[in-house]
This record gives sequence, C-alpha cells and structure tokens, in this order.
Amino acid sequence: MPRPRTTPPRTVDEHTGRVTALVAPLPVVALPLDDAAGAVLAAPLVARADVPPFANAAMDGYAVRADDVRAAAPGAPVTLRVVADVAAGVAPTGVVGPGEAARIMTGAPVPDGADAVVPVEDTSTGTFAHGPLDPAHVEIRVLHPVRPGRSHVRDRAEDVAAGSTLAAPGTVVTARLVALAASVGLTSLPVHRTPHVTVVSTGSELAAVPGPGQIPDSNSYLLAASARAAGAVVDRRGAVPDTADALAAALDAAASTADLVVTSGGVSAGALDVVRHLLTTHPAASDADVAAVGMQPGKPQVLARWRGVPVIAVPGNPVAAFVSSELFVRPAIDRLRGLPAAARATVTRAAGDSWTSPPGRLQVVPVVHDDAERVTPVRATSGGSGSHRASVLARADALALVPEDVTQVRPGDRVEVVLLD
Amino acid sequence: MPRPRTTPPRTVDEHTGRVTALVAPLPVVALPLDDAAGAVLAAPLVARADVPPFANAAMDGYAVRADDVRAAAPGAPVTLRVVADVAAGVAPTGVVGPGEAARIMTGAPVPDGADAVVPVEDTSTGTFAHGPLDPAHVEIRVLHPVRPGRSHVRDRAEDVAAGSTLAAPGTVVTARLVALAASVGLTSLPVHRTPHVTVVSTGSELAAVPGPGQIPDSNSYLLAASARAAGAVVDRRGAVPDTADALAAALDAAASTADLVVTSGGVSAGALDVVRHLLTTHPAASDADVAAVGMQPGKPQVLARWRGVPVIAVPGNPVAAFVSSELFVRPAIDRLRGLPAAARATVTRAAGDSWTSPPGRLQVVPVVHDDAERVTPVRATSGGSGSHRASVLARADALALVPEDVTQVRPGDRVEVVLLD
Repeated sequence: MPRPRTTPPRTVDEHTGRVTALVAPLPVVALPLDDAAGAVLAAPLVARADVPPFANAAMDGYAVRADDVRAAAPGAPVTLRVVADVAAGVAPTGVVGPGEAARIMTGAPVPDGADAVVPVEDTSTGTFAHGPLDPAHVEIRVLHPVRPGRSHVRDRAEDVAAGSTLAAPGTVVTARLVALAASVGLTSLPVHRTPHVTVVSTGSELAAVPGPGQIPDSNSYLLAASARAAGAVVDRRGAVPDTADALAAALDAAASTADLVVTSGGVSAGALDVVRHLLTTHPAASDADVAAVGMQPGKPQVLARWRGVPVIAVPGNPVAAFVSSELFVRPAIDRLRGLPAAARATVTRAAGDSWTSPPGRLQVVPVVHDDAERVTPVRATSGGSGSHRASVLARADALALVPEDVTQVRPGDRVEVVLLD
Repeated sequence: MPRPRTTPPRTVDEHTGRVTALVAPLPVVALPLDDAAGAVLAAPLVARADVPPFANAAMDGYAVRADDVRAAAPGAPVTLRVVADVAAGVAPTGVVGPGEAARIMTGAPVPDGADAVVPVEDTSTGTFAHGPLDPAHVEIRVLHPVRPGRSHVRDRAEDVAAGSTLAAPGTVVTARLVALAASVGLTSLPVHRTPHVTVVSTGSELAAVPGPGQIPDSNSYLLAASARAAGAVVDRRGAVPDTADALAAALDAAASTADLVVTSGGVSAGALDVVRHLLTTHPAASDADVAAVGMQPGKPQVLARWRGVPVIAVPGNPVAAFVSSELFVRPAIDRLRGLPAAARATVTRAAGDSWTSPPGRLQVVPVVHDDAERVTPVRATSGGSGSHRASVLARADALALVPEDVTQVRPGDRVEVVLLD
C-alpha cells in the first residue's frame, strides 16, 4: 500500500493557522449569569438599566436641601425638622420642604425636594443607634454645610446609562463582568456555546488495566484535563487498539457529539500508524492534512474531518502530545469558544543551563524555574532521553520555545517560555 | 441598644490570619482521575507501578543482540533471521537467539535475548509498509551497529520506579500530574474535598427584579463567581432583606450545607446593619470578630461562626466586596482546599498616573494596564467617587496595593499589583 502523501515541512505558526482554520466559533446561547463566567461574549454587553437606577444616598445621614444648611457650623447649627425616615429598598413618599430633612440610609432613594445628604456624623445625632427612627429625634441640628461637589448623593445613571455598551464581543466573562451585567439589569449573557471535545488515545499497548505487554493509558487523561483547563467539556474515551475498525467506531461515536476530536498516537509512518492511515483513506474522512511540522518534539501531525467534525491527531509520545495540546489544540478550543486570535502568551526568562536545539525546528522544552527565576530543562530521573517521559512533564512549570535558527542555548541566554498552570 | 464592641484596628495581614484561622483543610476523598484536576493532593503521590512497566522499543525497528551487529556497516551488512513480529500491546513469545532478530514496534516489549533495537532506517528494510509483517522479509540486513548508550530500549522503571514519591501533599493537581498518576498505575487521587460556599447578599434595596427604590443584586454574583474561580462549588442565594429573621433563616439554610458562608453588606455601624448585629448578638452565632481593618476600601469586616460554620461578612460596596473577596475569601477557600499558606501573588508595575492614598491604610485600587504595562486607576465613567461603582471593577485588570506608609503615588513609582483573571 503506498504511503500517504506528506505535505512539505511547515512552521509551527503555519500549522497553527491550519488548525484554527479547521474550526469556527460555536453558536450563540444565552447563559444565565450564574453559568456565564469563563464564557466568551458573542455580542456587545449593553446596559438595560441605569446604574444607579435612581438618585440615592452615598452615606447614612439626612437628606436635606443644600441651601438650608449653607451657613451651618458647630457654633451655629441649623435645625431641621425630620419629616421622614427613608430606608433602603423602599420608594420614598412625601417631599422634603424648606427647613425639613429626611433620615436616610446608604443606598436609599433621595426624596423629592432634597438635593444633598448630610452625613450623620456632621449632625447633632452623631451616630445612628441600631433600629428604626427614635421618635424623640424629630429635629436635628446640622453642624456643617454640605460641601460643593460632595453632596453624598449618587445621581441616577451616574455610573452607567441604559443603552451604553460595556464590553465587546470576544471578551471573556469575569466575575466582575457578571456583577456588572447584573447591576445593569441583565439576567443572562449572549456567549458562545461551550465546546465539547472528545479525546481518543490510540495504541494496542494502552489499557485502563494493563495486561502483559500493555501500559496504562495516560495520554487521554493528559489531553482531556488540558482541554478542560482550556474551557471545554470533555468526553474522555479509553484507549482504542490500533485497528482501523476500532478507531473508525470510536471516531463515529465521537463525531456524533463532539465539536472537536483530539486523538493521540498513530500519526507517524510506522506499520501500525492507524490514525494517519484511516484519516487519509477512509470514506468518512475528509480534508486530511498530513504534516511534518518544524518542531521538536511533535513533528508528525495530522488534521482532518471525520464525518465533517474537525480532528486534530497528535503524536503518542506524552511530551509531544502535551506540546501539541498547548500549541495546537488550545488555539482550536479558543476559537471554538469565540476568543479572538491572539499571540501565544509568553514571558522571557534567562536560561539556567546550556542545551542544544535542532536547526530548522522550534524546540519545545519542558523546563522548571529555579530560585533565581531562571529556567532549566527538566532532567529525567535516570539516564536516557527524556523526551517521552511522563515524569518530566509533571515536574515542568513552563515550556521553553527555542527558535528554529538557534542550535545552542547557553546559561544567561534569553528564552521565551509559556508558563504552565 | 449598645453598639457591639469593636476590636482595635488591625492590618490586612492580621485580618487575613484571623480569616484563615477560622477554617481548616477539608477531609480527604479519593477522586477519580477524570475529576481530580484542580484539586489539591492530601497525601503524597506514590507510584504503584514501574514506568515503563517492562523494557520496550523506543523506535520502530528490529530487536537484536547488540553483539551480533557490532561490526555492521553499509558495505558490510550483518544479516539476521527475523523470528518474530512484536506488535505493541502483546506479550512477546519466544527468544531472540544469536543471528536472530524480531521486528518490533515502538512501545512493544523487547523479547528475551534481545538487548537493543536497530531502527528500521538502519536496516535494508528502509521503512515499514502499513500492515503486518511481509512474509517475504524473513531476513534483514543491518547496516549500522547499535551505538553504545543508544540501544533504543527504554528499560523497565527507567522513568519511575514503583514506590517512588512523585508529588507532595499540597500540590495542585495539573493535567500533567493526572497523566503521571495514570502512568504509574493509579485510578484515583487522594485530595481534599471541594469546598462548598454559600453566598448571601443582604440589603432590603436589593432584588432580582427591582421594584421602586430597589436596585439589582450584583454582589452575590460577584462573590459567587469569584469563589467559583477560586475552586469552590457555590450556592448563590438571592439577596436577603435587612431583617434579623430573614438573615437568620438564610444563615440557617446556608449552615446546613456550606463549609463557608460569605455575606455582603450590613457590617458597618449603621442603624440597619443587620449582619453585624446578628452575628454579634444571636445565640446561633459564635466567635464574632468585628474588625476595623486598615484598608481602603473594605474597612469594616466581621468574622463569626453560625451554628459552627465559618462566616466571612464583607461590606456591601461592590468594590469593597470584591477587594475583600480577593484578600480574605480567596485565602479561606485556598485553606479549605488544602493549599499551604502562600504569600499573595503580586507583580511589580510602574504607576502610569499620580494618586493619593490614605495614611495608615493599605489602599487597594482597581487599575488597568496601559500599552507600556504601566498601571493607572480605573476612572469612573462620569464624575464623583468611583469607589462604589460596578463599572470600575469590570474595567480593571489588576488591583494595586499601596502600602500603609505611602500617601502619594507618582508616575513611575513602583507599585505592587495583584493581576486579575
């Protein structure tokens, strides 16, 4: 059987472009505010109501007519008659006329006629006791005028006017944005639906409970938890053996529910690399894109659709699978969620050690920060190449990205790194 | 009625210590690997199995006896008889004797007798075609010796030996740690139970659907979504009116299910500050701690227990509520989750503007980064103090912490900030 045609080598950025072109932002749903945090706005957030919806007291005190207390001073207090007690949450009744005041609590609506609040500590009352208005206090003496520009009244719409646009599509909904939405009268937010991702790991050597010659499946956990951390709802399928029938059945099941399928393993040119074989030959597969990506690890990558559903097929080496997840699967999930395309978030660090990097390939190295915030490749716990080792990943706290034209990193060199959770 | 006794002013760090002393790490549960990411290890992660569990091929090729191919060269190939075809996932049968080889796939167990793998590209085969062993290939010619130290065999326990400790209690379970746990034979992880937090906002002026004089409840959304982001399962209760009976009923309901109750509003010395009143006088309340914390905003804080369940009562001003959530509620949730006490995660930024700060109080200012990564306080959209404005919070991307002894921040000054999600 002829080997499937391989496209020419491509850069990581080119392949990322192919990956994100494979998916599109998911449809818009109205999520209740309690469920909206973490989702991505699909439409502008527009205020439905004014904030505040009415003029209200910014402090506990007395609602007055500022003119009445213009000359107030400790030695020359102005006496006002208390005609009302306005609690928060009730509509005020009556009007504050000249020489009158209304006791008012923070947040309570300022009654008609009043245009300022005198804080309780600027009156003869001093402080309010706990409980409703004491009938003895039918008069108060105001000891200080209301200062110009400090009326202690929050005007209607002072913070937000109904109809204002408060956030743009593509904004991630934070706790603070949920609260703002609630305060402007919204009970749900228009966001992109949460992506559903199915993860399938392949390999006849993999098993949940390994028999002779088998090893535990760990890649499906790695890819599933990474996709969850990226904001997807994930269906983790157990490992599938390296047979076309078993994989086709798994992909059929996945395609019936998933927005994106991620597989690991079987993408090289090996005799049993069934993922690559199936995605390039099976009638249910389309748009197969077999790539040699200029990166280490993670060179063999396959993209395709299975019954129309996007499939990202990454290598089975755990480090390569994780690197592929960070560089390719995460941007795909971001796009499904409705996030605008963004440059990879990296920070710059000094190298704490020297290491070599292959020419012409982006080297992605699990590294760990030392006490001086320098990064050093995670060493395997014993001899041999660490590129396939699960323990290496768990001890890393970042991925260093060594560019294609760098073949030697020396201590102190500046290195771009992606911080891990 | 006498005002409840207020303890002397205390620092933010002192109050944080009181808050974390109010809670204790939750009991240990065994969470299936699929649900464990994000939880905190309650016991050391110890490998149950070796990784790899058996010696296996690191490349597709032929399992050989290294001695046989010591002299192999392209001009003087060594011919070996292929006696077996070892696929991944099957227990090898038979032995590789002198002059013999076994075709082997990456990950497949190295058969007895063999001690090295010759990659397929170092043999006359060149590459493997897709499919099982071609019966025509009963002999191969090896063109290169197996280099010392590059046997292409992953030895048993080379990465992890059964019994090794791989992570300490207090470690947050990442996707990579889940994968490592799977690879060392674990199916669940001992972690602290997820905290259940109930959020209650108080204020007769608050309503889900505001009537006259009422405003939408936004604090409960703010505190609930923040607690969820901190890793809690949250029960958000609608706003409770400022009456002792209503609040006591809400606290009773909360205490029956929650590990921690967070309330907003009603903690000042105002006439209707029912939270403070209830937590300091009701028989169901204990350990009441009414504090004036040296911070702006967020000075009035109350801690207590309600029927034994910890309660953190924060002010109702939205910015103060959020600041309190970040500085006090989050460390409490961290402790419930089993995280070790950690210094607040801050970064240093240059101020992009000048502003004043009160002496003797830690000022916590919602700020936004400019294009030069400098931070500037978020201005309210119109005049007046911004300290109570929901819109200010939503536009901030960090909280600047201005120390107690600083009264003036000038452009270019270094400022510690907490980055927001």
